[in-house]
Order: sequence, then C-alpha cells, then structure tokens
Amino acid sequence: MRSRLNLGVIGLGRMGRVYAAALAQRVPNAQLVAVADLKPGIAESFAREFGIRKWLENYQDLLKDRSVDAVAVVTPTSTHREVVIDAARGGKAIFCEKPISISLAEAEEMLQVVDSSRVFLQMGFQRRFDAGYIGAKKKIEEGVIGEPVLLLSTSRDPFLPPLDFCNPRVSGGLIMDMGIHDFDVARMYMGEVRTVHAVGGVLAYPELKSVGDIDNAVINLVFENATIGAVHLSRNAVFGYDIRAEVWGTKGSLQVGYHRQTPMLVLTRQGITHDVVPHFMERFEGAYLAQIQNFVDNVLQGRPPSITGADAVAALRISIAATTSLHEKRPVDVREVEAAHDGSVSIPGGRGGSASST
Amino acid sequence: MRSRLNLGVIGLGRMGRVYAAALAQRVPNAQLVAVADLKPGIAESFAREFGIRKWLENYQDLLKDRSVDAVAVVTPTSTHREVVIDAARGGKAIFCEKPISISLAEAEEMLQVVDSSRVFLQMGFQRRFDAGYIGAKKKIEEGVIGEPVLLLSTSRDPFLPPLDFCNPRVSGGLIMDMGIHDFDVARMYMGEVRTVHAVGGVLAYPELKSVGDIDNAVINLVFENATIGAVHLSRNAVFGYDIRAEVWGTKGSLQVGYHRQTPMLVLTRQGITHDVVPHFMERFEGAYLAQIQNFVDNVLQGRPPSITGADAVAALRISIAATTSLHEKRPVDVREVEAAHDGSVSIPGGRGGSASST
Amino acid sequence: MRSRLNLGVIGLGRMGRVYAAALAQRVPNAQLVAVADLKPGIAESFAREFGIRKWLENYQDLLKDRSVDAVAVVTPTSTHREVVIDAARGGKAIFCEKPISISLAEAEEMLQVVDSSRVFLQMGFQRRFDAGYIGAKKKIEEGVIGEPVLLLSTSRDPFLPPLDFCNPRVSGGLIMDMGIHDFDVARMYMGEVRTVHAVGGVLAYPELKSVGDIDNAVINLVFENATIGAVHLSRNAVFGYDIRAEVWGTKGSLQVGYHRQTPMLVLTRQGITHDVVPHFMERFEGAYLAQIQNFVDNVLQGRPPSITGADAVAALRISIAATTSLHEKRPVDVREVEAAHDGSVSIPGGRGGSASST
Amino acid sequence: MRSRLNLGVIGLGRMGRVYAAALAQRVPNAQLVAVADLKPGIAESFAREFGIRKWLENYQDLLKDRSVDAVAVVTPTSTHREVVIDAARGGKAIFCEKPISISLAEAEEMLQVVDSSRVFLQMGFQRRFDAGYIGAKKKIEEGVIGEPVLLLSTSRDPFLPPLDFCNPRVSGGLIMDMGIHDFDVARMYMGEVRTVHAVGGVLAYPELKSVGDIDNAVINLVFENATIGAVHLSRNAVFGYDIRAEVWGTKGSLQVGYHRQTPMLVLTRQGITHDVVPHFMERFEGAYLAQIQNFVDNVLQGRPPSITGADAVAALRISIAATTSLHEKRPVDVREVEAAHDGSVSIPGGRGGSASST
Repeated sequence: MRSRLNLGVIGLGRMGRVYAAALAQRVPNAQLVAVADLKPGIAESFAREFGIRKWLENYQDLLKDRSVDAVAVVTPTSTHREVVIDAARGGKAIFCEKPISISLAEAEEMLQVVDSSRVFLQMGFQRRFDAGYIGAKKKIEEGVIGEPVLLLSTSRDPFLPPLDFCNPRVSGGLIMDMGIHDFDVARMYMGEVRTVHAVGGVLAYPELKSVGDIDNAVINLVFENATIGAVHLSRNAVFGYDIRAEVWGTKGSLQVGYHRQTPMLVLTRQGITHDVVPHFMERFEGAYLAQIQNFVDNVLQGRPPSITGADAVAALRISIAATTSLHEKRPVDVREVEAAHDGSVSIPGGRGGSASST
Repeated sequence: MRSRLNLGVIGLGRMGRVYAAALAQRVPNAQLVAVADLKPGIAESFAREFGIRKWLENYQDLLKDRSVDAVAVVTPTSTHREVVIDAARGGKAIFCEKPISISLAEAEEMLQVVDSSRVFLQMGFQRRFDAGYIGAKKKIEEGVIGEPVLLLSTSRDPFLPPLDFCNPRVSGGLIMDMGIHDFDVARMYMGEVRTVHAVGGVLAYPELKSVGDIDNAVINLVFENATIGAVHLSRNAVFGYDIRAEVWGTKGSLQVGYHRQTPMLVLTRQGITHDVVPHFMERFEGAYLAQIQNFVDNVLQGRPPSITGADAVAALRISIAATTSLHEKRPVDVREVEAAHDGSVSIPGGRGGSASST
Repeated sequence: MRSRLNLGVIGLGRMGRVYAAALAQRVPNAQLVAVADLKPGIAESFAREFGIRKWLENYQDLLKDRSVDAVAVVTPTSTHREVVIDAARGGKAIFCEKPISISLAEAEEMLQVVDSSRVFLQMGFQRRFDAGYIGAKKKIEEGVIGEPVLLLSTSRDPFLPPLDFCNPRVSGGLIMDMGIHDFDVARMYMGEVRTVHAVGGVLAYPELKSVGDIDNAVINLVFENATIGAVHLSRNAVFGYDIRAEVWGTKGSLQVGYHRQTPMLVLTRQGITHDVVPHFMERFEGAYLAQIQNFVDNVLQGRPPSITGADAVAALRISIAATTSLHEKRPVDVREVEAAHDGSVSIPGGRGGSASST
Repeated sequence: MRSRLNLGVIGLGRMGRVYAAALAQRVPNAQLVAVADLKPGIAESFAREFGIRKWLENYQDLLKDRSVDAVAVVTPTSTHREVVIDAARGGKAIFCEKPISISLAEAEEMLQVVDSSRVFLQMGFQRRFDAGYIGAKKKIEEGVIGEPVLLLSTSRDPFLPPLDFCNPRVSGGLIMDMGIHDFDVARMYMGEVRTVHAVGGVLAYPELKSVGDIDNAVINLVFENATIGAVHLSRNAVFGYDIRAEVWGTKGSLQVGYHRQTPMLVLTRQGITHDVVPHFMERFEGAYLAQIQNFVDNVLQGRPPSITGADAVAALRISIAATTSLHEKRPVDVREVEAAHDGSVSIPGGRGGSASST
C-alpha cells in the first residue's frame, strides 16, 4: 500500500476551494500537487497561497500530469460529464461532488465510461460523513429503534442562491439541488424508493418565477419495502441553516441535527436566545473533511468507494421523479424515469411550474 | 348576563369523565347538575363521587330536565348525530367532542338541525386551547414570521388503541381519528385546504390488517392560497406522546410542542435522559379545561362559538379526502368530497388499504 | 375519617389569595368557610367573588368560629407568631406559609405553643410539591445517582421586591427571604447543614443600600455528613424567574428546573428564542395547589405534617447563620445560632453589610 | 514579517502529542522541525509517523538547534521551571502549557528570566480559545448583559486521574489542577480576585485520602470590584465531561457550555437520551488548535502574547489561596499568598485535608 496520494483539484469555486484547502493542509496522506480552474489567475493565486507546485487553466493539462493519481471534480454540474469522462479515460481515481449530473442520460454515460476505464469513482454526499447521520445509522444497525418505518428529512436554506443558479436548466431546481441530499439520506436509512409525490411553489421569493424554480416543497416517499417518508425543502429558513432528519422505528425514534452554532445562551428581557448555524459550510465543515479523507484512504487502501456512481444515479432518479410529480401533479413511480437518449436534461424545468398555482 | 351555567354531561367514558370532573370542580361559573351514561351504574357512581344531584342512563331524560341549560356530548362518535340532534331540538346549548361524525352526510344533517333549532353549538379541538398553539397563532398575527408558507403538523401516539376502535367503521381510521386534529391546526394557521395526497400503511402493528386500518401516514397539503403543508401520523411513538407543529413564514418560523413531562434531567453513564409526556391527557389537561371553560363563558356571555360546526365539517372533509387519497393513490381535491345522501359512512374503510402495499 | 375539611384563610395578600382561591375552587375535599384580612373591604370583596359565606377583618373572630377546623396563615411574616399562637390555642389545624419567622426565638416559642396545644402544624415550602423536585428525590431514593455528594441550588428573581419588603427587619433580607427555600431543598436532598460561608453585595440595585439588603449572594454549605453544596441567590435574573437545582452523586447527577413558559420556539433572523417563566406564580402554581391539597389530606386522614415546624426552624437557622457569615466574613457553624431570649430579630439586618464592600 | 515559524515540541505526553500533531498537520504557517521526549523511542516514533526531521531525548539539544525559532513546553509541570528558563536563555519564543508551576516562587523566577531574556512567552488556557467562552466575552463587551455581577464556573471530570497525578505535590491537587482554568475564566470575565473561600472533601473516591487530594470542592470568590462568584469542581461527573460557565449581569445573563457530543437524540421506551462529551480532548479539540495557531500567529506578527506569564501567576495565586482556604477553613485574601523564597511548593498538599472532615 502506498502511503500518500497525489491529487489534483479541478474547479476552485466555493466547494472546490474547500476540498483543495483540506487536501493541502488537513489530509496527512494526501499531497495536493496541482489545481486547475478555467478562470484566469484563480488557480495561480490559490496555488501560491497554499504552496501548490502546479496551477493550470485547462483541466486536461492537469489530467496529463502523470504524477497525479487522483482528481477531485468540483466544477459546475453541467461540466461534470466532460471532466469525469476525460479523467476516467486518463486513468485517474475520481472524486466527484454531487450531483453527478442533472441529466440521467449523461450520468449513465459517465458511469459506462468509468466502468469500461476501470477507474475508481466516489461520489460526494457529505451528510453520510456527519457524526449525527453516522450515529443514527449505527443505532439503526444496532436495533435500537427496531425496524425503521417512517423517515423525515429536511433541507432548508437561509436565503436564495443566485437566480442564475436556481434556473432548473443549471441546478435542476430546488428539488434536485437540495432534495438530492435528502433522497440519498432516505436511501441510506430505508432502502430504495418506489414512488414519490411532490407539492410546492413560489411562496417566498416571487423573483423565482422568472427562472422557473420554486422555493418550498413537500415530497412524500413510498419505499420498495412499503415504508414511507417525507422530505421538506425550503429556501426561507431565514434564521439559519436547518438540516434535520428523523427515523421512526417500531421500537423507538432518532432525531439528527442541531441549530446552535456557538455553545452559548443569551438570557435577556427579550427572552432566551442563541445563534444559529449560518450555512452549510459551518454545519458540515467536518463532514467535508472526513469525506475527502475517506476518498483518499479508500484509493490508497484499495477499498471500494463509500458512495458509488450507482448511488448518485439512484438519488438523481428520485429527484427527477419528484420534479416530474410536482409538474404533473400526480404520484410518480421512480421506475418511470428513463434516460433521454439524446442526453438532454430530462426534467421539465423552465416551465415555471408550481403544484399549488391552480 | 347570567353568572352560572347549569350543565349536563352525556357520556362518561374517558373524555366524558375529564369534562365532567372539570365542570364539577374546576370551572367556577359552571354547575354540573346531571350526568348520563347508558351503562348501568356509571352515572350514579360518578355523581356520588363528585356530588352531582342527578344521574341517568337515558340521555333523553337528561335533555328533558329544564334546569339543564347546556350539554357536553362526549358519547361514541357513532351516536353524535342522534344525541346532538335531540339536544338541539331540546333547545340546549351544545358542546360536542371531535369528530362531529365520520360521515359527512350525518354531520351536515346535524348542522341543519342545529341551525333550524337556533341553538349554540361549539365543537371540541383542544389544541386550539393549548398555550403553545395559541402562542404560535398570536406570533403569526403579530407578523413575527411574515407570511406563513409551509405548515408541518404531527400526531403520534405511544401505542395502538384497541383494535375495535381502530376499525375505520368506528373511528374513521388513523387519518380521521388523529389527522383531523392536524387538519384543524392547518386551517387555523394557513386557511382552507384545496388538495391532499396521502401515503401510509400497516408498518408496525400487523394485527391492524384485520380491521382495515393503518398505523403510519404522511399527507401532503396544498392550501387554497397556494401554500403547502404536510401532516405526519404514527401509532408507534413508543417513547411517549409526540404532538408538534411548525409554521414556516417568509420572515421566520415557529415550533410548537414539547416532549418532557417532569422538569428534571438524569445524567448517568447511560447518557443524559429525561422522561416523556406519556399520553394526551398529560399533554392537554390544561387545554381540555380551558376548552370547556371557554364553552361555558361563550354561552353565558352570548358570544359566538370559538369552534363552529362548519369548522368541524371542514376538517372532516379533509380527513375524508386524505383517506380517499390513501386508497386511490392519487391527489384528491377536497371539493370532490360530497355528502353521501343515504348517510352512509363515506370513507372507504374496511378495505384494508395501504398506499404502500404494492 | 371525615370527607371534607372546613377552612379559614387569614391574610389575603398575594399568596393568601392563591391559597384561598385554590381552597374555594380546586381542592375538592376542602370547604373554604371564612376569610379574614385586616384591611377593610378586602375579605368581603374576595368572599363575594368566590361565594364564601363569612368574611372578617379580625382574624380572632375567625378563630372563634367553631365550624372552622383549620386555618391557613398567610399574613406578613412579622405577624406569624401572634396568629399561629392564637390559632394553636384555638385548637385549629394550621398551615403556615414560609418563613415561620425571621426570629429564631419567636419560631421556637411558636413551636412550643403548638406542641403544648397538640394541634397539627404544617409549614409551606412549595418546592417540595413541584414535580421536578419530587422527581429528583425519587431518583435519589432509587439509587440512580449513587450517594449524593454535591448540591447546587439557585433562586433568582426577575426584579427587586418593594424596598420596604427588602428591609432585613421585614423580610430577613435576601438570604432569608429567598435562600430559605434553597436551604430547605438542601436539607431534603443532603441532610443537615453544619457550616455555611456567604459572600454577597449590592451589585445591581444601588437603592438597596438605603434599607441594608443585598441583591446577590453565593453561599457555601458543608453538611454534617461531610458532603458540600452551594446556593446562589440573585435579584437580577432580568429575563425571568430562574429556579434550579443540581444534585451530584457518585453514580450520576440530576438537574431540576426549566426556563420556558410557552412550549413554542421562535426562529427569526435575531436567533432562536423562547419566552421565560415570568415569576414564581407561573412556575409553582401547581406546587402551591398540591401543597394546600396535601395539608387538607393530611389533616383529614390523621397523617403527620409533610413539612414540620422543626423543618422550618432548621432552614431558619441556616438562613441566620448565612446572614451572619455575610456580615462577619467568616464561616459560621449553624450550631452557633442561638435563640435570642428577648425574642428580638436575631439577624444583623439594617447594618447594610456586604462581604465585598472592603 | 516572516511567513512560517519553525517550532520544536518538548514533551510528547497526551497534550504534547496534541500540540505536535496540530503543528505538524493543521497549522499552515508552522513547521514542526524537532520533537523531544526523554523517554527513549517516543520522539523517534512520533517523528517518523508525522515526518518530522529531527527527534531528541534531551530537550537541551533541541534548544541548541538554531533553526528552531520557538518551542512548545508540554512537559510535566514539575519540569516547567527548568525547561522554560533554559528555553528563555536560549532565546526561543515559548508556549507553555498550564499550569506554569505549582510553586509561586518558581513561577516568579521563570518570569524574571523570561523578562531579562526578552523572549516571547505565551501561556496555555485553552478555554479562552473556545467559541463559547469567546462568544460570552464578546457579548459582555457589547454590553448585552450590562455590568457583570456574578460568575459561576464549573469543571467536572468524568473520572479520577491516576492517583500519582492527584498527589498535590505533583498536580497541586484538585483545586489547582482543575480550578486554575476556572480562576482564569473568572479573571477574563470579572477582573482580579480579592478573597476566596473553599470547602471540599473526599466524597466519591476514598482512595484519594492516601495521596492527600480531594474530589469535590466549592469555592466562593469576591472580586476586587466587589462582584462575586463561585467555582464548582468535581471528579465524579461520571456521565461525561462537564464544563460550563454563567455570567450574570445587570441586564441579562450568559451561559456557556454543552453536554452533547453527537447531534442525535435517541427516543425509546427508556426516555429521550443523547450521548455526552466524553472528556477534554473532544470538548476542546478546536480550542487547542486555535490556541497553538494563535501562538504561532502572535510570534510571526510580533503581537503581544494573548495570555501572559502574569496571567498564569494570577491564576496560580488564586489556586494557592483557595487551597489554603480549604485547609485552614477560613476566607483567604489572595494578597496573602507570598512566594516562598526557597522555591518549595507553597501549597499545603499532602496533609490530606478536607474542610468537611470534622
């Protein structure tokens, strides 16, 4: 077994910088040897700050570097297909941030190339590396709550992302962008999803209508084993970042999540109060680090990926089914979701739909 | 204005005894003058214990008592129609425990008689008298959370009621028996419900299949004003009684509910723990008292009922729509729900349905 | 055993009205037959509101009423001696609100008369009837925390009482007025106190200096069994009423108390907040009712008092020792505290002392 | 300004390894160039694991290395004097873990040499780098609670350290070993301490009597500005690690601390429960990292130390005064504490004292 993995990071946006900084400073058995970002100066500036020896604008040049064993793909989702396929053909081990794609056809093409290239691919779903979500998984496995029968999972943002990003053609829309985390959590605790039913609408930010996304949704789930669940999504948790899950079993229940950032209560005439986790980085900083550490360990030790491409596709299919349900106002069987063979985005985004607009 | 109301209580089951004891001992401007229960000895025994001067087996004899100004109807739901109609024709002010009926046709008939008899009718939904639910209503009215856009409401029982009661022909089934509280809460905070979609099944107590009820359900709501909601129901909150609500607005959120019964934490090697509210009486004791006090006050002061027959019918229609959705596996528009003119039970109970049984 | 106790309430100040209203409306086996208050009109007005048949200005007239079996003495502390002694000589069963007196000599005289009159006397310390404090006592007795070794008890008021009341010649001062509850709690959980050491001062309300009281204190306790404790007192819990206790044992710990009044969280951009128990009545309403109910039950059933005169004297001695420690800036052995034979107030109030004023 | 600091770590016990690992992997502007531990093999093994180029048994050899700019002294307290003085004379910037010494004479000698050598010395008190303690300091400075008037600070360990360490001649005993953190917190929030009074005893672990230490203590504080405080110390928080503080002000209060390790609740028939922070490393991992990072930053940027030698001596004097109070059963003025000129341990450890043993 080798003791250290040489990595390159492709894409130095918000999440890319998180992974790159972790690999540069906090993953002992990783060596970050190159970074690439197509915006001029970004990679150089990052490389100088963190003492990385190589910086590039063209990710393909990074892939040509034989010293690079593995890459973290943290580019915009729309470019995942191209970068992952090139990395796979280049023989690199690959970490790819969620979502794999917003197109099922694209995602399946990517997995085919990864398979035929026989490279290692691990997908990013950081909640699986959070102490709370891990703890709940362990308790379930220990039988503490008996058989799980009901899952509740929520994702709530404190504000709206940029409108350009909300556009379903870019992000897939609220249900795919945020809900895909909850669908992954649902699969982790309960198993495969059979049918979904979604309602939602533009309820807090009227400007969203211009791009065709929604800001709130509630999605019912029925699993293949007949258990049930619900996912709640919102962009107006204006007080802070609100990520929680409940698993209800025949012998007990589990609740995952927390709100308070600083371990301090303030008690004044205005009441008892505390601050709140502001956003995902503060909430999941440790999980992001653990996730990229886990990728490095898995590659070095020849272990299988903790989250596979098939996991990513499964969550994607649920996202597409739920988005379809929202637009068509009917329950949708996840097996209905087929890859469009022309590779086009298979969700009906851009139609400005709202299940509650009638 | 008269200073004291003479009341009779009809039905001395679990809830009947609660209201009767409150009227006998804790509602200062009420005088409990008669109690009736058709089981021999029940009324007499209660009357002797609480010093009530009159006890009867036949409620019609109680209605004939001219000193009785008002009655609390706390009989099994299946008898509400007969007792309420008789009480209305007898000119009594009426408090009727939820649900008004499990049949929409029956409920509408009752309201017609109440209307034509010009008697006062107030329905029971005790959550409206709980400090937490009241507090949230006030905060919403004060604008603290901006416009409400998303409602979550949950009812979870620590164990299964007797199978006889679970039978949908008796109780209406899980969605009607428990969910009707959540639907009333939903209307209080958000307005009228337009469409519902329910999933659920027999997931924790296989014996339920024999009577055709379910033990877990998740129900999506779309309100007429396009906002959305979700209701979660369960019979396997085995740790205790779990009643909560969340209202999400454009400027903030509210969470109602609590778990701990005794204000004491126990910290040992097994962790930090506390006890839990065991069941509805411990959780809502104060609300039940406030509710019957409010009924007495309203009658004495000539105020309109706090919860009308129309409120009861509205919640009932949502319950029927959600039960229909569960069985027919499709979203149901609440306006679809029509009274069956023969007065038969209008929900498809007894068919043992489960949306997740495929 | 008689089934109902006829009571009179002497003193209709804030606490007197609480007990009288409870006896009139919420203690089923009590009949409140007379109320007395020396301020003209007070007793009559209360009696008319609650339907009490007899009202008096002179408590001695109430004591002469042979139909009165028992009295609740809720007059100002300075009059307890006179009223309790007269009631004892009148052969009434007596409930006396805390503190029994601020003078040890007076208290001992009272107990002698009670003893020689062979009447029933039960003292008021309502925390002993609170579900949290009771729960902790039970857990200790069950051995859940092993041997108790450390006690923390706190009393904190949200604002200053009237200056006249704060005057140590009236109330005994902060340590006696509030701390006596904590000393009673300490005895309940740990046993007898051997030595105390107090520090404190006028830290929040400078106007207190004019009457010679303090607003904050910390008091160390050493028990006769060598275990230890601490009491914290404050008048500036400006956010609300803060009453808590912790018992630390060899196998675990217990924490009693809570802050939130309404079971509702408010989540806005200003943080997550909730309201707070405003003052003692909201916190201990149930305990006050349970306490007076317990008194009635004990008298009717011939049981011994739940809290004896000796308990009251023991807590008083600790209060006096702690006040002495504050002024003399040294640990004080509780056994030092002797009754002054002239019956004068035995604490050095009015000297305006503060252990931290050097 | 230089961009990177070359450091050596002296002492690779539990805390030494924490700081050394942080410097090796997680402090970007630090380069750990050498480690020393007098136990054969320890330094080499650590250096090989973390890729450190130099390892030594004799710390003086490390001090001779001119490439070493700064050292972290994490040796047993009894050796601090020798190592710090040698490091100062060697011209190194020094980080020294708490306590500086258990002897005031030693501590003052160390500071004199540091002063005359004009080297940088920063002491370790990691609570000052914890988000909760920092947050409270900020709120106080913002005036959120008005003037602070009452401080409560607690340190509670889940189990007893090794008996050898408990020996007051080694650790200074409970009050110095644990309480010194609370005394430092007290100074941070309230100012200088004038008098202390301590009670305590061997209440949970009888074996402690053999070495002369105690396992529980309560210590009253009076500050120079007349405000007051209390410190609670215990070795029998058997459920976990319990570190909390409360600051009470004229306009509000602050509570710092938390118990739960994993953000997950478990709800079963046994109640609602969660796990607990097991010990100091889990609680303060982030604070230890922030503290050593702060030391590196201060040295590189020429800023004054965040915690000075004078801070360390002030907390030590309070510890000695409180220990003296425990043994002499009287309040002790901190100004009484004088350095013993022969450098001997100035606390009366080994006499097995307990204020509650009479």
